[in-house]
Amino acid sequence: MTPAAISLSGEIQELVTLADAGRLDSEDPLRSLRSRFRIPPGLVYLCGNSLGPLPLVAASRAREVIERQWAEDLIRSWNVHDWFGLPERIGARVARLIGAQPHEVVIADSTSINLFKVVKAALGLRPGRHTILSEYGNFPTNAYVLQGVARDSAGQTRSRAVAREKILASMDADTAVVVLTHVHYRDAAAFDIDAITSAAHAMGALVVWDLSHSVGAMPLDLNAADADFAIGCTYKYLNGGPGSPAFIFAAGRHHDALDPGLCGWWGHRAPFDLVEDYQPAPGMRRMLTGTASILALATLDAALEVFDGIDLAQVRAKSTRLTSAFVDLVQAKCVGFGIDVASPMDSRGRGSHVALRHPQAYSVMQALIARHVVGDFRAPDVMRFGFSPLYNGYRDVWDTVENLVTVLGGEEWRRPEFISRGRVT
Amino acid sequence: MTPAAISLSGEIQELVTLADAGRLDSEDPLRSLRSRFRIPPGLVYLCGNSLGPLPLVAASRAREVIERQWAEDLIRSWNVHDWFGLPERIGARVARLIGAQPHEVVIADSTSINLFKVVKAALGLRPGRHTILSEYGNFPTNAYVLQGVARDSAGQTRSRAVAREKILASMDADTAVVVLTHVHYRDAAAFDIDAITSAAHAMGALVVWDLSHSVGAMPLDLNAADADFAIGCTYKYLNGGPGSPAFIFAAGRHHDALDPGLCGWWGHRAPFDLVEDYQPAPGMRRMLTGTASILALATLDAALEVFDGIDLAQVRAKSTRLTSAFVDLVQAKCVGFGIDVASPMDSRGRGSHVALRHPQAYSVMQALIARHVVGDFRAPDVMRFGFSPLYNGYRDVWDTVENLVTVLGGEEWRRPEFISRGRVT
Repeated sequence: MTPAAISLSGEIQELVTLADAGRLDSEDPLRSLRSRFRIPPGLVYLCGNSLGPLPLVAASRAREVIERQWAEDLIRSWNVHDWFGLPERIGARVARLIGAQPHEVVIADSTSINLFKVVKAALGLRPGRHTILSEYGNFPTNAYVLQGVARDSAGQTRSRAVAREKILASMDADTAVVVLTHVHYRDAAAFDIDAITSAAHAMGALVVWDLSHSVGAMPLDLNAADADFAIGCTYKYLNGGPGSPAFIFAAGRHHDALDPGLCGWWGHRAPFDLVEDYQPAPGMRRMLTGTASILALATLDAALEVFDGIDLAQVRAKSTRLTSAFVDLVQAKCVGFGIDVASPMDSRGRGSHVALRHPQAYSVMQALIARHVVGDFRAPDVMRFGFSPLYNGYRDVWDTVENLVTVLGGEEWRRPEFISRGRVT
Repeated sequence: MTPAAISLSGEIQELVTLADAGRLDSEDPLRSLRSRFRIPPGLVYLCGNSLGPLPLVAASRAREVIERQWAEDLIRSWNVHDWFGLPERIGARVARLIGAQPHEVVIADSTSINLFKVVKAALGLRPGRHTILSEYGNFPTNAYVLQGVARDSAGQTRSRAVAREKILASMDADTAVVVLTHVHYRDAAAFDIDAITSAAHAMGALVVWDLSHSVGAMPLDLNAADADFAIGCTYKYLNGGPGSPAFIFAAGRHHDALDPGLCGWWGHRAPFDLVEDYQPAPGMRRMLTGTASILALATLDAALEVFDGIDLAQVRAKSTRLTSAFVDLVQAKCVGFGIDVASPMDSRGRGSHVALRHPQAYSVMQALIARHVVGDFRAPDVMRFGFSPLYNGYRDVWDTVENLVTVLGGEEWRRPEFISRGRVT
């Protein structure tokens, strides 16, 4: 045991020496979960906030779906493997992770398309109000969707994006729906879901929460927050595979009145009756549109099995300890290297990744990747380091900072091969 | 050689005896393609118009994407495997099959969602016109999408569905866009793409063709028809796997003015700049919305390799010979069993499946399936038999009719296990 120090953020500094890393990992109650993923040996993978690694069970399920269900059972699979029910069955798995009832969540399409659907539904629930309020500068696909809705409304709807600190003050009697991303994609700053939802409701508005950067890394309790709608991505901390389909939550109290605007046969009350007129399915099923990729759905379903029996409070506790340890070590060891911590210092207001700012962030990250430490870059000057409590540990934190010190101290990032600018997603 | 007979439809009857089936199969220039699919031995699979079987190359590509790209290369795969470019690369493969330029087609989302996007784009190109015209009684997901667009338009757009024979006469100066499914999902009746497109253009309207039940089973030439838009499914004759993502075609002359209404970061001009305002990508890329399942895309990409070097005129020639042989044999052998051919008798106006009507169609199909002849059922009284020229042969036709005669002649369909009504997709 090394003596505990107090970090610059005022929290107890747990990770000071390499020995601490080993001890903290050996004491980690979630440590065994790493064996459920296939992560290349020697790789410090800190991009799980962008693309989660392969759960072993997802690989075997994909094989099963392709080589037995599709190949052998063919069209019968719709019945014998209940392919049609996958959006609801997987939705129930996600519901536990976000504090929702099992029937309040379905899996469908992409996060962008699901945002369109819940915003159209929310606008329908607030006739006479014309404004969609959102945060300026968060992940812009949401902005693009909202701008598209406004452009198509013949002046009936406007999309207004304001700075984070102006959200509360910008809600007014014309606000139909507030669309916010819970944890910011860039700096990991987290909104207070309960407080914002209450404030919006007090103003008569509804709220859509985008949980893409928080689901799976922390407990969420949408029902306790009296939340209206949520959407989110499943290929980040949920490890559903690249581009895996997204989820939609709507509170049960809204179900009977939902019209997603984007209506196809998978959302019909009786899809196999093939009748001419659209009649919405009861409940969340109406938020579905067309036939979904069964391969993508089944792989996601399997990936979520890794969460079975896991206590999300424990996940969150480990997440904050990892990110705090990283922030503390960076501050202790990177003095004078031009590094700024761009994420909130108080772990209570921070998601599960940490953003560092550096004028040569792109090249520094390339140099780190060459050293098998994989974070990512966001223009113009941010490096993101995602810590997934399911497979990252304290040794990952230690190794990352050691490599960062080497890269910055030796100016390794100046090598020509790290300068040319590529596309990093 | 058996002497050629003249069928009831006036065409030469090629398949009269079991020996004919063997001879015709041995003479089939496409025969070897069957070996590129994994089809269970002993199964006569006639549901390729609903779910194509597994191409061997698709299984190996899915493994590659999961076990090497996702597992090993992780986030780098967006660059090193150009995941981001898959919608356009696969689009170029589909373009060859539908007579389009490579840059006129992308893969995205589902057919239903793509219909929404092209209809919104078409309405934007025809301001001042208010009517979407479609066929009553075709596959209803399209009707549901159009009804949703109309419901959301504050009275600006109406969706009008009329009987097939009234389509031409119903086009008028208020018709913005005509939405038609080329080959009917139930009876396989085919529209004349050239004639309808010309008539719509003469009236100042645009046309959206849904090619779900024709693409891959016959040559299509959208450019020659001066077509505006098309959408289609890839899990039927294209064998992309259950729920594989769909395609969108828009004629190059429309590209600069397209607004799909459903706009996300994948359709942005510079998606990785993460700027706040939506600016459409040039060309078809703007028809994309959110992140797509890479697993689903890559599997589809591989499945389409089966079409490399294949002459679609040859595919069509075999398709019409198979369906004509089936119609002729049914008419010759099922007399008195209450069977009606519900598909067009003239093969020139018929797709690649044949619909038979019988009062007990559901039970008859169940009895056939028990005999390993797999077609499907469409309420209330239709059995569909899809003949895919890539893997079905004349022996399949022969065996199907032999089993049909046995089931109908012996009233095998009356067995209790075939009576209970299940869900057949």
